[in-house]
Amino acid sequence: MQNIPIEIEVIGLLAACLTTASFVPQVYKIWKTKSAESVSLTMFSMFFIGVLLWLVYGIYIKSVSMTIANVITASLASIIIYYKLKLKE
Amino acid sequence: MQNIPIEIEVIGLLAACLTTASFVPQVYKIWKTKSAESVSLTMFSMFFIGVLLWLVYGIYIKSVSMTIANVITASLASIIIYYKLKLKE
Repeated sequence: MQNIPIEIEVIGLLAACLTTASFVPQVYKIWKTKSAESVSLTMFSMFFIGVLLWLVYGIYIKSVSMTIANVITASLASIIIYYKLKLKE
Repeated sequence: MQNIPIEIEVIGLLAACLTTASFVPQVYKIWKTKSAESVSLTMFSMFFIGVLLWLVYGIYIKSVSMTIANVITASLASIIIYYKLKLKE
């Protein structure tokens, strides 16, 4: 596969900013309130595995924006899962 | 750009199933309770625009799984935005 043109990567990076940024307040709310009751562990685990697969996909197709977006989203999702498991104890 | 190999698309389609499915309960909850209080309109609008840009990106790089995933996610997000605006009235 050839590299993805820079102008397409700009669209991807803009998309990455928007979808990742919209996820931040959820993580902040859980961190601040120390409550993760409103989120489902099953759903976030599914989401987390899905994001990891998108990351593998992004690396394979040499997509810079998909790789960056999914590394950040996977990190944020793992924070939510960590709090969910920790607060359960 | 060349087409993405089928074995990579399988990873993408699996990723699409997981990330899209994890989004469904949120839409179902809003539809069932007819309450969208817990979600932020600003955040969902950002997310929606981001998903549309990922869709444009997916079409450009000829990614079948990204195109399918983002069409479904954009539809689900637009349902949430619709309820958010409708319930505001």
